[in-house]
Amino acid sequence: MTANSSDGEDGRRPERRPYVSVPVTVVGRASRGADGTTTDLAAVEEPLEVRLHGRPFAVIMRTPGGDRALAAGFLLSEGVVRRADDIGAVEHCRHPDRPDGHNVVDVYLLGESRAVLDAMLADRRKVLTNSSCGLCGRLTIDSLKSRASPLPVAWTMTAEVAARLPDGLRERQRVFDGTGGLHAAGLFTPAGACDAFAEDVGRHNAVDKVVGAMLLDDRLPLAGHALAVSGRTSFEILQKAWLAGIGLVCAVSAPSSLAIELAAEAGITLLGFARDGGFNVYTHARRIVELPT
Amino acid sequence: MTANSSDGEDGRRPERRPYVSVPVTVVGRASRGADGTTTDLAAVEEPLEVRLHGRPFAVIMRTPGGDRALAAGFLLSEGVVRRADDIGAVEHCRHPDRPDGHNVVDVYLLGESRAVLDAMLADRRKVLTNSSCGLCGRLTIDSLKSRASPLPVAWTMTAEVAARLPDGLRERQRVFDGTGGLHAAGLFTPAGACDAFAEDVGRHNAVDKVVGAMLLDDRLPLAGHALAVSGRTSFEILQKAWLAGIGLVCAVSAPSSLAIELAAEAGITLLGFARDGGFNVYTHARRIVELPT
Repeated sequence: MTANSSDGEDGRRPERRPYVSVPVTVVGRASRGADGTTTDLAAVEEPLEVRLHGRPFAVIMRTPGGDRALAAGFLLSEGVVRRADDIGAVEHCRHPDRPDGHNVVDVYLLGESRAVLDAMLADRRKVLTNSSCGLCGRLTIDSLKSRASPLPVAWTMTAEVAARLPDGLRERQRVFDGTGGLHAAGLFTPAGACDAFAEDVGRHNAVDKVVGAMLLDDRLPLAGHALAVSGRTSFEILQKAWLAGIGLVCAVSAPSSLAIELAAEAGITLLGFARDGGFNVYTHARRIVELPT
Repeated sequence: MTANSSDGEDGRRPERRPYVSVPVTVVGRASRGADGTTTDLAAVEEPLEVRLHGRPFAVIMRTPGGDRALAAGFLLSEGVVRRADDIGAVEHCRHPDRPDGHNVVDVYLLGESRAVLDAMLADRRKVLTNSSCGLCGRLTIDSLKSRASPLPVAWTMTAEVAARLPDGLRERQRVFDGTGGLHAAGLFTPAGACDAFAEDVGRHNAVDKVVGAMLLDDRLPLAGHALAVSGRTSFEILQKAWLAGIGLVCAVSAPSSLAIELAAEAGITLLGFARDGGFNVYTHARRIVELPT
């Protein structure tokens, strides 16, 4: 049983690819194009709305595939269902008003689990709108646009400084050195100086800590800072950067498809795979200057 | 500015350590003790309750340190505050009824942000109880205990099979091979056969997918399966395993302190740093048999 390949399990929808091809500018390492551009594969990240009896229950940022299994497993973790018999139906939405039905799963509960749901809905504290950290169901790129404007290119960073950002992060990761278990985030000036740094078991927490420290210091928007993060970039990290006014995000590992889309909309320069002296540029490459020849 | 070291920023609480020492059994690689046991450092994971005007707003699973900055950054991301002036006070809870006040931050809003909060509270869909995926504020180890019993040692796995679990995961990670951007989860029998596999941008989603696929197939509880995950283990992964009845969790990277605590309570055998033919055992080592001499 491969949950990812079971997207077409109800026989109505074709399997959707879990990755997409994206254009990328490669800096500091071998690339195919004469101008440094090539294409890369990015893991797809899209919101899945889980509806219970026709009402929105949660939005999960996920990679398409195995959506029905994801919804079932999620409801098990949330304590809504306990066994297969609790689930009457779980299927992709086919309502004509929802052309995005491939990103909506309708679940209908049976017996006891209906009573559990009713009790949860009666208790405001237990109503879920969130599963993916920082998303909260209500925030899509469109609604984010109403809260933030695309960021202008107000400053640039040399490729040499950008390539050193992961080292700047790494040399401050004293906890990681001990445990191998923490994510890190740092705010760096265009010249590469580190102005804020934090570690946390949660990547999104580390970002909230550095941005929050600046917020408490009344230094927002961060119109002259780059954000460097360990690990991967997802929708939520880019969302946090945008709301803080950060024009450049640099990650040690890969971005998701939605991180790239959001960066493109937000006017954010998104770097990925920043390691071994090189990096990939996914969006708004003109903030990076003095590229190596 | 180092957000992690600013825990004592209000001058009342000492900095708390972001990691703890835990006993560990080392299998398949050099260790210090003659019996294979030694100690390891684990990143601390604890819940932080963010309260707004005395009412619970969200629970964030985080590493202690920079708690005020984390609360401020979180509220920025959630759209509750936009600037420093929106925050009247942000401080650790000192109420005598809350001996866990170091894990509670009280925030008081000013002006416009109060109106934003009132509007959010009036709209049930926008009431947050969750920030850490799968936690939802209401689930602590204690309340989990009311939903699940400690798992008996009903089966064992040889050290050789356990050491091969990451390979079993890795060889199925076709998407990762392309993008470097996906987490993976798999369910394996005691003999090492893979019964379910999924990939996702979210580690918790990959687990929900494999467990959910089994749930839909009416195969819960998973009393004869081990769960292998790429990356780290946190509270939420162990919570999902426990609710599904999975007695052994194996991760390629480090567990958090709370993952270890929860595994100990749940009767789950927790393996970490499973790579290069060896692994660490953090809890309930007796499910692992035929240790190499």
